[in-house]
Amino acid sequence: MNQTLITELEKITGRDGVLSTPEDLAVYSYDGTFAEHRPDVVVLPRTTEQVSQVVRLAAREHIPVVTRGMGSGLAAASVPFCGGITLSMTRMNRILEIDEVNATAHVEAGIVTADLQTAVEKVGLFYPPDPSSIKHSTIGGNIACNAGGPRCLKYGVTGDYVLGLTVVLADGNILRTGGKLIKDVVGYDMNALLTGSEGTLGIITKALLRLVAKPICARTALVEFSDLDDASRTVNAILSAGIVPATIELMDETAIACIEEALHFGLPLDVEATLLIETDGTDEGTVVREIEAAAKICRECGARQVRVAKDEAERSNLWKARRSVSPALARKAPNKLGEDITVPRSAIPEAIRQLKGVSAKYGLPIVIFGHAGDGNLHPNILFDKHDPDQWQKVEQMVTEEFEIALRLGGTLSGEHGVGALKRPYLEQALGPVSTGIQKRIKQALDPLNILNPGKVFPD
Amino acid sequence: MNQTLITELEKITGRDGVLSTPEDLAVYSYDGTFAEHRPDVVVLPRTTEQVSQVVRLAAREHIPVVTRGMGSGLAAASVPFCGGITLSMTRMNRILEIDEVNATAHVEAGIVTADLQTAVEKVGLFYPPDPSSIKHSTIGGNIACNAGGPRCLKYGVTGDYVLGLTVVLADGNILRTGGKLIKDVVGYDMNALLTGSEGTLGIITKALLRLVAKPICARTALVEFSDLDDASRTVNAILSAGIVPATIELMDETAIACIEEALHFGLPLDVEATLLIETDGTDEGTVVREIEAAAKICRECGARQVRVAKDEAERSNLWKARRSVSPALARKAPNKLGEDITVPRSAIPEAIRQLKGVSAKYGLPIVIFGHAGDGNLHPNILFDKHDPDQWQKVEQMVTEEFEIALRLGGTLSGEHGVGALKRPYLEQALGPVSTGIQKRIKQALDPLNILNPGKVFPD
Repeated sequence: MNQTLITELEKITGRDGVLSTPEDLAVYSYDGTFAEHRPDVVVLPRTTEQVSQVVRLAAREHIPVVTRGMGSGLAAASVPFCGGITLSMTRMNRILEIDEVNATAHVEAGIVTADLQTAVEKVGLFYPPDPSSIKHSTIGGNIACNAGGPRCLKYGVTGDYVLGLTVVLADGNILRTGGKLIKDVVGYDMNALLTGSEGTLGIITKALLRLVAKPICARTALVEFSDLDDASRTVNAILSAGIVPATIELMDETAIACIEEALHFGLPLDVEATLLIETDGTDEGTVVREIEAAAKICRECGARQVRVAKDEAERSNLWKARRSVSPALARKAPNKLGEDITVPRSAIPEAIRQLKGVSAKYGLPIVIFGHAGDGNLHPNILFDKHDPDQWQKVEQMVTEEFEIALRLGGTLSGEHGVGALKRPYLEQALGPVSTGIQKRIKQALDPLNILNPGKVFPD
Repeated sequence: MNQTLITELEKITGRDGVLSTPEDLAVYSYDGTFAEHRPDVVVLPRTTEQVSQVVRLAAREHIPVVTRGMGSGLAAASVPFCGGITLSMTRMNRILEIDEVNATAHVEAGIVTADLQTAVEKVGLFYPPDPSSIKHSTIGGNIACNAGGPRCLKYGVTGDYVLGLTVVLADGNILRTGGKLIKDVVGYDMNALLTGSEGTLGIITKALLRLVAKPICARTALVEFSDLDDASRTVNAILSAGIVPATIELMDETAIACIEEALHFGLPLDVEATLLIETDGTDEGTVVREIEAAAKICRECGARQVRVAKDEAERSNLWKARRSVSPALARKAPNKLGEDITVPRSAIPEAIRQLKGVSAKYGLPIVIFGHAGDGNLHPNILFDKHDPDQWQKVEQMVTEEFEIALRLGGTLSGEHGVGALKRPYLEQALGPVSTGIQKRIKQALDPLNILNPGKVFPD
């Protein structure tokens, strides 16, 4: 990028807000995937007004603007393949207000989600969405991807907590949406349109979030099933009974074996699936009744063993197994590629069977776990990236994973987004009519195509 | 409309699907408001394909298409002020599938919401949204307005239950969105964009709806407050305690007096507000604990009396009072104009005080009730439409009601929509930037402006 533009950017943000050495650019060239590309310049704004000025400059010069939080995305949405400006939101990380009466938090987009949670929990409130990146990913990034997490079964996804946004549009104008309002049907739902738009329609600089009362207790059960179908039936039976656990996490036999091999938790190796079920709430009696009712349903549906944690130590131990999946995968193979397909809940057993078929066909392990209550599965292919034959196989396997999801009435992503990696499959998932009108919306809001170009939509 | 076009329409739907006598047109000239205008022709399609063909004809001829369900809307969104084609969806009223395992219902847009509810409740499932028009309004209309209702506090609004839509776009193309998926972040959230778009972006012909387990018990309490502020504090205290009742309905002293005067229920005339609180669920123990905990909080917050219904008969009696508001209003004055403002929950007392100020200023009664948990108030102005002086006052009063909502951080509508009646206030509510990009979205999806022209947006 030429020095004149860099000087102009420095005038907007101050000199410490602009990075352009090769070393600095390298830091901002990747996300949580294997993809990598350097921006021409990194800008670290401190205010919405600065973002607006940067975008006006970018619009004038037709330079791409790729916004990123902490770069933990899993679809390469924040990798700047076209170069241009990377806008890092990490300096805009203030909590502007916690309104205890209306149960809202107004924050800047760059705040780390866990930091927000800690702050609101201090006053008895709760921000439920819990993507596994929670300790380093930002609210802005979570909103841009409409992030999920284990607790979303009961509490809903990030988008369910977005009451209002401050957004810099492609022409530099500042859009303010929503308010401290639970119901609002005035005009189109701009909060929902911008949530999950992956930086292609506008740059989120602030968010007004809905909070709920902080749950004060939880009960957890680890349930073993000899038969995967029984595990799937159990999920539906629990929900049909009107019990909505915070979490129903599934690990299939491949995930259990992988954890056990690496970490020796004493998990059973002769089961097809385990469910980790957690109920939570503000009334201990209710939370206990719910886990007991869920446990009873598990036994009725053929569970081999139901282990309800008797105390906090045992509960924490049960979670340790679930949280060990990713570290265990890292010990088993040099690389993993985790996908994020969703299917109708009833199709989970068939999806897992077909995923196993793909694994057998290509001779690479696929480890499967996910959010069973939501039908959201994370099949992780284990491989060695330095073996070109394996990498080629992985690419074919991913395509087959997507085909399985679509064939079963599912889709490409439940919580990671499309980014760059899934855009070749977008039209297959949505059909030409939907893809066409979504492109028209993109064109209407960003006619110069400067906001995160080359993402979400196929060319 | 000329006979050639009518013949063409008849070829699409059959002769019984096209109405054009003045008597028939009159039937389709109004909704739930005072507005009225005849369409040039009424078409009653039976399939999505027929709707598509009608829209292609309309696009070719640049004729407006106004879609309506049962015409119970409260913002004149389905009144065809520009004439043209009124598309009545009432013949598309089939249930296509109830999927008990995935807890979904696939229905045609013209099904009456209560009919859907009855059908799914037969298999132990539940479609929660409950607009007061539920016995005659349609799912398509509910989605087009993102309808709410008393139960939305716990269960969310109509949009929270939309998993997928079949929509005829302005060029006649058929768009299919979503699926039996709880989580889906592939592309923009088209379900959310279309929900609440009031027929301006596309014509909803089918909907795939999320269902939940049917609650099997409920407990209800009527709570009297001498002081409106105490009632408001109580709402926040209940929610802060982690109790989420299905319903927290507020009636202020004007509503209580109005019911009492007309129907002699024995309600107290010396209180400033009552709250009707209902808890529900699938576990009776929990439901009882919740209403008891809520009742305790009411007493702690200064309630004068808390009356928890001891049995179903008493419960039904408590609801009778709330449901009598509208009939009671009808007995008190020849006409009423009910608005639908929302404010942050904390601003409810101030909103009510300012609404009373408007009533005093113009000398016409405003009766106030609403969904206190959501901050959604229905101030009803009582008047005589045949008195031109009163009608002029009503128009000024409505403007002041909107100004109050906006001044307190609220907005024009929580569940009725903008339609024709609130479009003069839209830009004041949303600001020019938001209004501008929403118009661009409308323009991108309906370049000829044939879908419900003259609604939502100011010219």
